[in-house]
Amino acid sequence: MTTPTKPTIGVFDSGFGGLTVLRALLPLIPNAHYIYLGDTARLPYGAKSQATIARYAVESARFLHQQGATLLVIACNTATALALEDIQAALPIPVIGVIQPGAEAAHLANPTAPVLVLATAATVQSHAYTQALTALGLSATEKACPLLVPLVEEGWLPGSAAEASAKTAVTLEVLHIYLTEAIAEAGYPQPTTLLLGCTHYPLLKPLIEHTLATLHHPMTIIDSAEATARAVAAHLPASTTTETPTCAFYATDSVEKFQRLGSYFLGQPLPEVHLIDLGG
Amino acid sequence: MTTPTKPTIGVFDSGFGGLTVLRALLPLIPNAHYIYLGDTARLPYGAKSQATIARYAVESARFLHQQGATLLVIACNTATALALEDIQAALPIPVIGVIQPGAEAAHLANPTAPVLVLATAATVQSHAYTQALTALGLSATEKACPLLVPLVEEGWLPGSAAEASAKTAVTLEVLHIYLTEAIAEAGYPQPTTLLLGCTHYPLLKPLIEHTLATLHHPMTIIDSAEATARAVAAHLPASTTTETPTCAFYATDSVEKFQRLGSYFLGQPLPEVHLIDLGG
Repeated sequence: MTTPTKPTIGVFDSGFGGLTVLRALLPLIPNAHYIYLGDTARLPYGAKSQATIARYAVESARFLHQQGATLLVIACNTATALALEDIQAALPIPVIGVIQPGAEAAHLANPTAPVLVLATAATVQSHAYTQALTALGLSATEKACPLLVPLVEEGWLPGSAAEASAKTAVTLEVLHIYLTEAIAEAGYPQPTTLLLGCTHYPLLKPLIEHTLATLHHPMTIIDSAEATARAVAAHLPASTTTETPTCAFYATDSVEKFQRLGSYFLGQPLPEVHLIDLGG
Repeated sequence: MTTPTKPTIGVFDSGFGGLTVLRALLPLIPNAHYIYLGDTARLPYGAKSQATIARYAVESARFLHQQGATLLVIACNTATALALEDIQAALPIPVIGVIQPGAEAAHLANPTAPVLVLATAATVQSHAYTQALTALGLSATEKACPLLVPLVEEGWLPGSAAEASAKTAVTLEVLHIYLTEAIAEAGYPQPTTLLLGCTHYPLLKPLIEHTLATLHHPMTIIDSAEATARAVAAHLPASTTTETPTCAFYATDSVEKFQRLGSYFLGQPLPEVHLIDLGG
């Protein structure tokens, strides 16, 4: 009996938001070694030109390949939208982004329902989700929600701290404003599938569900992180053994912030984060 | 009678926040030509290393000098905190940052009162305001307020739109949370001077005053933008003529966003914004 080779899965994001994708991968594919790279020195990718983003993303992808990655996950919506093809062309290993799996999961949930996509301004501007959803025959409305990432990074979410309730109330009110606007912008037929098009947003899922209930507008919530993890699992041979996954973490700057906030995104404490230099 | 040479004042920021400094300069020094540069392709400077920020800022400063600037204003707290000395060493013209004028204005307002500084996470981490205030004999508490810049950039402030009241309420609640925490962190003797240590914050001044009234904690608000404009005026010979200032605007990316949001920061419509390339 031969032991199947344990895959090494590279996970790349401009920051630590992609840790929600890693969080979804770990229980689904436990028999793997993971290498996570957050290109924190050069984030956010959003405001930069396509050529610059592609160059940064390819450099990051090459680093993960050099570290032994046999499959690469682009756990970043902006990098997927603007650089997936460049990365696929540059590397001889399978490269999976977050947008196509998210769109396919929305289609699987309901092949005719209009989809509402919440994302950052940069992702909305790329219209990558609309393109992927339209190709599957789904109509889409995209809504840029620039306040959600800073609210998640500030940790204004339900937590153990007693004083957090006022902060959670702010986040709920912001979600109420964005979702009310987005539903109005979508018009009729009203969207009944909600696609979370940013790796920070899975942490907001309970608050989004609560807000939709308040608005009497129930929607099926599709989490790109979970959909991407399932797409990666479908790409690998099923394993009969259950092992404990191993992980290595790299960042290009702000290791302290990465470690502090990262454990929150990953849902478990982060081990040592290694600082690397990919150049200016 | 000779006509005095009209000064050309270069104003530099990583984005368009520095337009609040230009807004304060225009009425105070009308007999000048202004060149504004927003290094929007490489913002935010906050998460980057000191060496990288200094390199970016020196490149931007050199561009403004080449365009004819005879005096340079670093209208960016992060660049002032981390690169003022490098820029001063690189250029043969006077270079004025926003931090020293802000600290001096706080001292002038009350030479013994403890100061509360609101700023971005990057500016707080540099402790540049604490150093400048301590050198003047003032005790300081710095409070990082990461949600305020995105709230200002989203335009969640009192405006003409009828639906804006819920958005303004969010901004007021966020200010209430930050100011309550900051005053508690400052302890006793309680601060009575509030220094706005970010070029976005002058747009929040009416809401901050309202929040302080709600908290029954009146404070003297010092606006670094206004203080910096006065420091620049003090550096130039007084003019006896009143002319209309002229302005040219440059950005390294996102000209559309710059023009749209910039007019809001400047308090008047922006003319054409020229796109320039300072390299990666």
